[in-house]
Amino acid sequence: MRVLITTIPFASVSSRPLDILRDAGIEPVVNPLGRKPTESELCDMIRGFDLLIAGTEPITDRVMAAEPGLRIISRVGIGLDNVDLAAARQRGIAVTYTPDAPAPAVAELTIGLMLSLLRSVHTTNTGLRTTGWRRVMGRRLGLVTVGVIGAGRVGRRVMTLLSAFGSSVLANDLEPARDIPNVSWVGKDELYERADVISVHVPLTPDTRNLIAAPQLSRMKSDAMLVNTARGGIINERDLAAALRAGRLAGVALDVFDDEPYSGELLGIDRCLLTCHMGSMSVDCRARMELEAAENVLRCLKGHASAQLVPESEYLLHGTRTP
Amino acid sequence: MRVLITTIPFASVSSRPLDILRDAGIEPVVNPLGRKPTESELCDMIRGFDLLIAGTEPITDRVMAAEPGLRIISRVGIGLDNVDLAAARQRGIAVTYTPDAPAPAVAELTIGLMLSLLRSVHTTNTGLRTTGWRRVMGRRLGLVTVGVIGAGRVGRRVMTLLSAFGSSVLANDLEPARDIPNVSWVGKDELYERADVISVHVPLTPDTRNLIAAPQLSRMKSDAMLVNTARGGIINERDLAAALRAGRLAGVALDVFDDEPYSGELLGIDRCLLTCHMGSMSVDCRARMELEAAENVLRCLKGHASAQLVPESEYLLHGTRTP
Repeated sequence: MRVLITTIPFASVSSRPLDILRDAGIEPVVNPLGRKPTESELCDMIRGFDLLIAGTEPITDRVMAAEPGLRIISRVGIGLDNVDLAAARQRGIAVTYTPDAPAPAVAELTIGLMLSLLRSVHTTNTGLRTTGWRRVMGRRLGLVTVGVIGAGRVGRRVMTLLSAFGSSVLANDLEPARDIPNVSWVGKDELYERADVISVHVPLTPDTRNLIAAPQLSRMKSDAMLVNTARGGIINERDLAAALRAGRLAGVALDVFDDEPYSGELLGIDRCLLTCHMGSMSVDCRARMELEAAENVLRCLKGHASAQLVPESEYLLHGTRTP
Repeated sequence: MRVLITTIPFASVSSRPLDILRDAGIEPVVNPLGRKPTESELCDMIRGFDLLIAGTEPITDRVMAAEPGLRIISRVGIGLDNVDLAAARQRGIAVTYTPDAPAPAVAELTIGLMLSLLRSVHTTNTGLRTTGWRRVMGRRLGLVTVGVIGAGRVGRRVMTLLSAFGSSVLANDLEPARDIPNVSWVGKDELYERADVISVHVPLTPDTRNLIAAPQLSRMKSDAMLVNTARGGIINERDLAAALRAGRLAGVALDVFDDEPYSGELLGIDRCLLTCHMGSMSVDCRARMELEAAENVLRCLKGHASAQLVPESEYLLHGTRTP
């Protein structure tokens, strides 16, 4: 049996995920492109594989149709926006993910991006090398109001770290999570209007696509700052660029984009701090995600309950009801 | 009476420091250069002023000699390395400072710089705009060992924030501060050898100049990271550049330099994250520092005990004994 591994990088931290697959008699084949494949490339690549360990490439019905023997899709990470869950269910393909592993690294990156934005670290580092020395006034994380949308695995951790800085936190989710201390639960409109820094920590689903677009951006303070380490598409990139070009928003940090690798117009706006979908890219989290993804394949093959099968709630969130 | 204000920027956050001076019948004159003056420029500028509200420009015996009527030097900030305290004492000039005000902003910037270094935020932001998309593996602040040299006003706050992330902290100071929780007190050599990230939070004095030079750099892990938000001169810039060019150290973040504005060779090294002496540059801290500096002038003139006169310990640290 062979497993196609499309996520890049893989096993750069540890060879253990490859080792346990080989020990189980499964031959791992790592994506030879060295980058995220397109849908068409994936259709070609998938042929002859029963198993897929996947990144964020589009795993559509067309991809699944290209290899009718495909049995398991094991996502390295938590997002499922790139997997057509309805098609997978219809075809009897099991889907697993690693929902807990990325959270600590994403939360830390989020705080780091907030601190960089608030103190103009990125623009100063670039500016010192081009236009020269300029001392820029900033704001303290401990004294601003941070709006956190989404109180899941990452959002909770972000809120806990913010409380150590002393930030005022406005939180929003479908249901308030009353167990999180030092947080005010507010509606989204109030959050947009009152927050100095806004960070989204929700999955990309039909409900959250374009969650933040022109109407929401126009509600925000003119010097608000925006952070997205969740998924591209949650913040409308075109509307965001228009707001920035109109002089609104003091800074934006994006780790995720509609199309990755990103090469869009935000590259031309200095106060955009841009990174390359690196939220989960810490040695520890990446190692855990990859190992769990390999283990999920093996457990799923054996029918073990410990495989992290995508729960029903995710099928519902992504617009797929049980047939 | 007139006060020369040399620090730049001043009163950009609030006009209150200027207002309270004027209300007391003191005419404020802000440095017309719009940048830090040199010693010679300051010698010209100081003439006719009894009072000086100062930044980090060199306030030498020559400067003091240029205006024999100078009575008070009021530093905006905590560092006293730029003031010849011995000369001030000999000439009967009172020196005040604002030691507490900058600490919260410096500590936050320090944590932000650590997170940027650990996750390659700065190099990725630049790289995405030049060489393109590259997902870089990083390390989590919560899982690395951070060495903090100096457990004063800033160092303590840095350690408190680090404990919220869960970092292992190795601390060093002349005396261990046993009241700081979750910290291991170690000697400097052990700290250099064991820490993944090293941050200095000591004043620049004859004892701390070149605290970290070639011998100390060579003890560090080859992928160690170094942060300096304290003062240029504590880390030897030439030795640091040599270490970096030899491929040692995974990243360095410097907010302070031997000569400011900085225009040295570290600008040519991408993994140096460089900012413009902005540790205290948050709206709240800057406002507090400037107001306290103005208040210190007024209180000092009235002989009030509440003026923040530089204590004897600072004269000793900077090599000036009571005559």
